[in-house]
Amino acid sequence: MTGPDLAFDAALQATLDGKTKPQGALGRIEEVAAVLARVQHSLTPRAETCRHVIFAADHGIAAEGVSAYPQAVTREMVKNFLAGGAAANVFARRFGVDLAVVDAGIAGVPLGLKGLIDARIGAGTANALTGPAMTADDCARAIDAGALIAGDGTSDAASFGEMGIGNTSSAALVAAKLTGVPVADYVGRGTGLDDAGLEAKADVLNRAAARTEDRLEARVALAEYGGFEIAMMAGAMAAAAEQGQLVIVDGFIATVAAACAMEFAPGCERAMIFAHLSAEPGHTRLCDAIDVRPLLHLDMRLGEGTGALLCWPLVQAAAAMLCDMASFDSAGVSGKA
Amino acid sequence: MTGPDLAFDAALQATLDGKTKPQGALGRIEEVAAVLARVQHSLTPRAETCRHVIFAADHGIAAEGVSAYPQAVTREMVKNFLAGGAAANVFARRFGVDLAVVDAGIAGVPLGLKGLIDARIGAGTANALTGPAMTADDCARAIDAGALIAGDGTSDAASFGEMGIGNTSSAALVAAKLTGVPVADYVGRGTGLDDAGLEAKADVLNRAAARTEDRLEARVALAEYGGFEIAMMAGAMAAAAEQGQLVIVDGFIATVAAACAMEFAPGCERAMIFAHLSAEPGHTRLCDAIDVRPLLHLDMRLGEGTGALLCWPLVQAAAAMLCDMASFDSAGVSGKA
Repeated sequence: MTGPDLAFDAALQATLDGKTKPQGALGRIEEVAAVLARVQHSLTPRAETCRHVIFAADHGIAAEGVSAYPQAVTREMVKNFLAGGAAANVFARRFGVDLAVVDAGIAGVPLGLKGLIDARIGAGTANALTGPAMTADDCARAIDAGALIAGDGTSDAASFGEMGIGNTSSAALVAAKLTGVPVADYVGRGTGLDDAGLEAKADVLNRAAARTEDRLEARVALAEYGGFEIAMMAGAMAAAAEQGQLVIVDGFIATVAAACAMEFAPGCERAMIFAHLSAEPGHTRLCDAIDVRPLLHLDMRLGEGTGALLCWPLVQAAAAMLCDMASFDSAGVSGKA
Repeated sequence: MTGPDLAFDAALQATLDGKTKPQGALGRIEEVAAVLARVQHSLTPRAETCRHVIFAADHGIAAEGVSAYPQAVTREMVKNFLAGGAAANVFARRFGVDLAVVDAGIAGVPLGLKGLIDARIGAGTANALTGPAMTADDCARAIDAGALIAGDGTSDAASFGEMGIGNTSSAALVAAKLTGVPVADYVGRGTGLDDAGLEAKADVLNRAAARTEDRLEARVALAEYGGFEIAMMAGAMAAAAEQGQLVIVDGFIATVAAACAMEFAPGCERAMIFAHLSAEPGHTRLCDAIDVRPLLHLDMRLGEGTGALLCWPLVQAAAAMLCDMASFDSAGVSGKA
């Protein structure tokens, strides 16, 4: 990403303000249009193709009972993705989005299924309660693999999802270390813990967080607490931004990955839009901390990047507005009295 | 609309809960799916076709300087709709939505343009500051015309927009009389009044409201203060709901029409989803008063039903979820531990 281009920004604002509507009346759709226009450096940006990548991995900390679902669900849901039956598949098909599924490190033997991208760093991370989730080398490998998987930048937008039982725990710990606040601020019910489960999860995460300093660099936080899917997604986001793709970031776990990418690839945030604000309370706190504002608030908490997929039509509408909407001049419409 | 069907609702909830996601994890998308399923009385509802109707009319009260734009803009924007250049056109084309434009009562001589549905009740309403905006007969004619324009119910969804310089004033007055609170609660900047303009608008609306009792029936409120487009939209919404179409209600003015329809066609609210929460503050108050919650919050304030159009892909995603998403059983995915 190059730096701001003031002349381009002025031309962009004049174009937006010349459209047949009161200034700013399309609100956040104008904001999305502006991000897309800047990423493509075009006043008539394209939003024809989007590739959605789901990174799946397992988490050693799941052994501490931090999730309402058994670890086997990661593996089972990957099969569901490949069979086309999950929510992300259904939304992607409906909106014409390509979908890729990556084994970033699922527990057990490799699935060896057709259509699954094998980028396994290991058979799940180690238990971050008692030691680092992964080595610094494995973390670097995961980030690099993400960059490769991001591809050649031929799609207009890159959107991302994740699947990994236990990954709200991993995300909460990484978020806490990136922002230097207690992990309690980022603990939530995940896929649906009850009150006792939430209390037990908070206790596990407090003890895990106590192993290291309050604030860590992104790569260190990822190695200590991250999942393979979070590190790989961070690498993919940074690479997609670098290639001039719009990056659609959705939900708590992907926002943690985005926050890491912003640290090790400064400027990549200029290519990002934030899709859906998760019902997971830590997501609101992290968005405030990194000063971003998700577009959708639909009380979802599923993961898989489902919110990113629901944002894709809004991106297409924003592009169409810039490309096809008449101006006051061209349509002969009067301005303000 | 028939009444609630408890057996159907139970089957619907079981279907939603059987999908491969934690219960409720698709949040408001599940809510939209449920409304659509109930409207069609089907667990595999269709969302293939949507017809968007924009009702345009002028308002006598515009003579009091309550809008930032001249009255001619209503007419000019209708030409823009017919030429395909407005935001609503661009969004409708992008999402494959049919668009119809209705002259419900634009000031001046009839436009006589190809593609414009002529349902003119008059050349704009009378000035509601000094007397009723329209006669009771004209109000009934407008409501009846709306029902005809709603058509034969062949599209899966009916969405609605409006254009009319001065219509946030008309909508504020009708909302105040429906809910029995001071009109000041519903006054906003519309297309972009400055502070002085806002104060002057509030003064005009206070004086207009003082002409009648605090609370009025919907048909009376529409005749006293309504626009032709608001009354016609209310009739169209009631008819579309009656025909088993999903009704997509967008923004402040359309919500006023929906509130009227709910009064004279009880039960029609069961066919409605509310699309975008307008930046116009009166919209939040009215949604609270009638206990509805718009899906999108994108800081828009354009009208034309632009928010309804942006909701249509979400409706399609919701239908696809019900129709195509795998169940825990069919996909062999484990439930909660």
